Amino acid sequence: MSSNIKKIGVLTSGGDSPGMNAAIRAVVRACAYHNIECTGIYRGYQGMIEGDFKEMGARSVNNIINKGGTILKSARSKEFMTPEGRKKAHENLVSNNIDALVIIGGNGSFTGGLIFNEEYNFPVIGIPGTIDNDIYGTSHTLGYDTALNTVVEAIDKIRDTASSHNRLFFVEVMGRDAGHIALNAGIGAGAEEILIPEEDMGLDRLLDSLRKSKASGKSSSLVIVAEGDKIGKNVFELKDYVEENMPEYDVRVSILGHMQRGGSPSCFDRVLASRLGVKAVETLLEGKSNYMVGLIKDEVELTPLDMAVKGKSHIDKELIKVSDIVSI
Amino acid sequence: MSSNIKKIGVLTSGGDSPGMNAAIRAVVRACAYHNIECTGIYRGYQGMIEGDFKEMGARSVNNIINKGGTILKSARSKEFMTPEGRKKAHENLVSNNIDALVIIGGNGSFTGGLIFNEEYNFPVIGIPGTIDNDIYGTSHTLGYDTALNTVVEAIDKIRDTASSHNRLFFVEVMGRDAGHIALNAGIGAGAEEILIPEEDMGLDRLLDSLRKSKASGKSSSLVIVAEGDKIGKNVFELKDYVEENMPEYDVRVSILGHMQRGGSPSCFDRVLASRLGVKAVETLLEGKSNYMVGLIKDEVELTPLDMAVKGKSHIDKELIKVSDIVSI
Amino acid sequence: MSSNIKKIGVLTSGGDSPGMNAAIRAVVRACAYHNIECTGIYRGYQGMIEGDFKEMGARSVNNIINKGGTILKSARSKEFMTPEGRKKAHENLVSNNIDALVIIGGNGSFTGGLIFNEEYNFPVIGIPGTIDNDIYGTSHTLGYDTALNTVVEAIDKIRDTASSHNRLFFVEVMGRDAGHIALNAGIGAGAEEILIPEEDMGLDRLLDSLRKSKASGKSSSLVIVAEGDKIGKNVFELKDYVEENMPEYDVRVSILGHMQRGGSPSCFDRVLASRLGVKAVETLLEGKSNYMVGLIKDEVELTPLDMAVKGKSHIDKELIKVSDIVSI
Amino acid sequence: MSSNIKKIGVLTSGGDSPGMNAAIRAVVRACAYHNIECTGIYRGYQGMIEGDFKEMGARSVNNIINKGGTILKSARSKEFMTPEGRKKAHENLVSNNIDALVIIGGNGSFTGGLIFNEEYNFPVIGIPGTIDNDIYGTSHTLGYDTALNTVVEAIDKIRDTASSHNRLFFVEVMGRDAGHIALNAGIGAGAEEILIPEEDMGLDRLLDSLRKSKASGKSSSLVIVAEGDKIGKNVFELKDYVEENMPEYDVRVSILGHMQRGGSPSCFDRVLASRLGVKAVETLLEGKSNYMVGLIKDEVELTPLDMAVKGKSHIDKELIKVSDIVSI
Repeated sequence: MSSNIKKIGVLTSGGDSPGMNAAIRAVVRACAYHNIECTGIYRGYQGMIEGDFKEMGARSVNNIINKGGTILKSARSKEFMTPEGRKKAHENLVSNNIDALVIIGGNGSFTGGLIFNEEYNFPVIGIPGTIDNDIYGTSHTLGYDTALNTVVEAIDKIRDTASSHNRLFFVEVMGRDAGHIALNAGIGAGAEEILIPEEDMGLDRLLDSLRKSKASGKSSSLVIVAEGDKIGKNVFELKDYVEENMPEYDVRVSILGHMQRGGSPSCFDRVLASRLGVKAVETLLEGKSNYMVGLIKDEVELTPLDMAVKGKSHIDKELIKVSDIVSI
Repeated sequence: MSSNIKKIGVLTSGGDSPGMNAAIRAVVRACAYHNIECTGIYRGYQGMIEGDFKEMGARSVNNIINKGGTILKSARSKEFMTPEGRKKAHENLVSNNIDALVIIGGNGSFTGGLIFNEEYNFPVIGIPGTIDNDIYGTSHTLGYDTALNTVVEAIDKIRDTASSHNRLFFVEVMGRDAGHIALNAGIGAGAEEILIPEEDMGLDRLLDSLRKSKASGKSSSLVIVAEGDKIGKNVFELKDYVEENMPEYDVRVSILGHMQRGGSPSCFDRVLASRLGVKAVETLLEGKSNYMVGLIKDEVELTPLDMAVKGKSHIDKELIKVSDIVSI
Repeated sequence: MSSNIKKIGVLTSGGDSPGMNAAIRAVVRACAYHNIECTGIYRGYQGMIEGDFKEMGARSVNNIINKGGTILKSARSKEFMTPEGRKKAHENLVSNNIDALVIIGGNGSFTGGLIFNEEYNFPVIGIPGTIDNDIYGTSHTLGYDTALNTVVEAIDKIRDTASSHNRLFFVEVMGRDAGHIALNAGIGAGAEEILIPEEDMGLDRLLDSLRKSKASGKSSSLVIVAEGDKIGKNVFELKDYVEENMPEYDVRVSILGHMQRGGSPSCFDRVLASRLGVKAVETLLEGKSNYMVGLIKDEVELTPLDMAVKGKSHIDKELIKVSDIVSI
Repeated sequence: MSSNIKKIGVLTSGGDSPGMNAAIRAVVRACAYHNIECTGIYRGYQGMIEGDFKEMGARSVNNIINKGGTILKSARSKEFMTPEGRKKAHENLVSNNIDALVIIGGNGSFTGGLIFNEEYNFPVIGIPGTIDNDIYGTSHTLGYDTALNTVVEAIDKIRDTASSHNRLFFVEVMGRDAGHIALNAGIGAGAEEILIPEEDMGLDRLLDSLRKSKASGKSSSLVIVAEGDKIGKNVFELKDYVEENMPEYDVRVSILGHMQRGGSPSCFDRVLASRLGVKAVETLLEGKSNYMVGLIKDEVELTPLDMAVKGKSHIDKELIKVSDIVSI
């Protein structure tokens, strides 16, 4: 390989997601495999500024592939948004002989990496790590597949109660401004309706759909609501609205919350993390910078980091149609 | 056995809990074993009033032992609180030749059974089914053990995020007016503090404890809050109070919600349900009535149903001490 | 749509796999959505011969999306391999006004469908259902993703013991003649070596690799062996060979077995089943026959059924390289 | 408290089981709570001989309560069976100022502790850690409840396939010479027959029972076989015998194997481990020695260690009767 890179730093930044540890492991071991050194940087950019570093050999990442969270911890850093903060961070990298960075995180983390690269011409590669799947340039972000399983398992439990009591449940799931989790987990959980920010259903159509569902003989109903959806101001207002207009329904709300971000990664996320971690190191060793490694049509591919940040991941329209059909 | 019972009716009433299906199966099969008939009554007392009955043979309960919820469904019935409602219910039982009832539910369901027995001298036996473990006369209610596992698994996931970000989480768990779930799941999840209705900690001691926890080097903290606890008016007010007084903390709230009531029962709950279901039928066949079957010191025992309703289940003080020690 | 199809029959055939019920549900509901009838055929081709049919409306598939196995049951049918058997089957379809078939199964099931189509010009569409992922024309068969998660969760448990005792474990996983499960679950479980039929490692290289692994400081080791692998005659012979040549190792064998075929499907398998079931019905309604619906580069695509049967699914060479790197 | 103990050593020995880490954590934190020191001894008695020690403060056991296996690792030590080995071990304890031992393990480990105590008058307390539940003086050993859940979850998956194909499965589970796991998990999994070493059913009664089961309309059957059962020489011979005598059955065998020993502990095992760990330390601090802490009728109680070793844990006869009834 054609670069002069002798040591790579790796960090996790932004919200944690299952698979981050598997990615750290892959980066560390790919460095060992290619006979270069690897440094773990704790607490994201904040740890870079504070010099919170640790040398990592192949054995230092034993038995972490199945762990949720991130052993390098994560944090948001206001100081890194200032030139002074980045200067300190750069000095720490230089004095530790770190030649390049692998950044595991989301759009905010990548933006920080782009600015840092521009100022110091420091090689950076991004690995998309977030459960929200809202990053352009990859069909799957790390943690997304795991979060889908966590959500359907939780809703399976709620359905036990819903169908025992003939109730209507509104279940709010994560996803920030994207409806990927809601749409896929909604289909997977057999939801009657799925409310996502990308499609404004409107309150009237929701009522209409619930009435049809009741008329079709369904005794219980699950409506999945993406946290970014704006049909009601929030999920409790939705509940009130439906109870006012359909008094025959006994409505309950469940907000799945932070458990969606944790847990042991699925096999898919562990394999994806391994592939992306290896590719990130090899891309740096080829002398490239400013790319995100991602999965596109089942292949590991590079996307320029600024495109990953600016681009928008789209909802699959076929899935919306499938959802309409299978919830009949 | 000494009774003249030829057919037993079984129903589930009140909130559903994991293990109810295993108990239904045990009742149905114990009837088949003792060569008497069994009728399933749908939707609790309401189905009794409406004559929503189904004959159940041994094969009708195949493959349900591992299912959450209740195949007989559950409901609350206002009509059963009236003499007219109970009269209709009794007529339906008589015209279907049902001689006795097994009632799977909580205190409210048992109270209904007691009144019905008093009015019509109808034999009834109760099986305690609720996740809250708040029933006198049994160390474990059906579903409680499963709910504990559901809760610790959810909190394990939250801990991944908490420890990756050095955060404080308030996690609200179910249990109505009892702290059993909070106390046991709190110890099991390794919580720093556990707030239960039986022990008013007070806001000052909570702050004090969190400060000690921080000082001891803990980077993240989990506080489990029983839904019946009254230290704050609710868990969001607790969050606000701690953030005001300990601005160094980034606090999050998670309300686990209805998923705690569902899911495939644990082995413990399946075995307990099998034991209680068999005992309920055999107790009726011995000519007894107005008892609850429960687990006391690992043995299946009878408790008079009115004592089960009036008695209070107590928190184990040893566990509070253990919790204080292991969370140091 | 341009066909004259008024009623579709659906069956599951061959080994069962998680997601089959979700696919049945999608076929049934897609029929309801397009206002045609649907008939469930029990026990695969054998039930077709015996006329073991049941009309299925949208409500008949409530609450099955999360269940493993197949509610239509499966069987192998020797009788269907004879012209007489197929004649009976055809007569039953005709007398029940069934115009087309959706066959959920593997290669053997598809071959049966092709012969039947050739003899009677009966429209058939295949949905690939097997955990082995050994079917050409789809990147994922139904049940494969679930099986991967089942396998890694089981191996995670074995790793607890392996690393507590510094042991070497050989773990045999399913996959028939294909190494997909072994390779992906092996990477996901963090295995030291993965033995698959597509790559003959040879006993010498295995010993060499285990010696390197020990020298690198690994205290325990997991070797994943695909059931179709032929490096040893079986996994117990592998154990004996390693123990003879590396007496310093305490070797254990675990054969994961049939639990790999069951369980609640992952979200991925539920969504895939929904997409493929809808597409199968719509393809028939477009007047097409003799196709398999599958997933190719994240899109639902058609592959001629004879190509699906004759073609070979290949192991991803990139994954073999990734496995070598991350197991260093 | 009345002892002069200033530092306690803790070790895990024999086969690992879920909950051992939770017990280590409780011992370490109980020491911290009572202001004495704690030393972790690696790899059981072997590490004691080799001086493989590590000081453990309250923070050293963060985030281990939910981990399977044992962070202190386990091993069997031939050297400790010799007076020379124990002499070295004692010297290491003395030179590290360790005043007493908490031994987490099974009967073999306790026997070692008794001999050591006799030779050196060294205070020892045992905590029962094994999935087999075969120790006198406790209703539950650490890991037993978790293993039961692991087994029923695996069998639930196998049942999906069994009932899809109308098959008979023999499933072998762990338990050494005791049938506790087989009996309880068999009831929990809804098995048709359960073969345990404590009750020799005989091959004739097995065939008779399977024939009745078939005649009663059951389409599939699960027979749980304890590894210590001797009705057939092994489970494959059982399969052959049934196939010869009941050719109408398609029989399969599954040996669950080592996954039963691992996994994240259940809430029950975590709470039990916490209670026993605290009690072990407090018992030593009260100046007592040669006891096992265990759970008897829901209370933490002391049993003389030699009684724990010599006594026999008995199968609950009521459960055998319950199993007969609910499998009708």
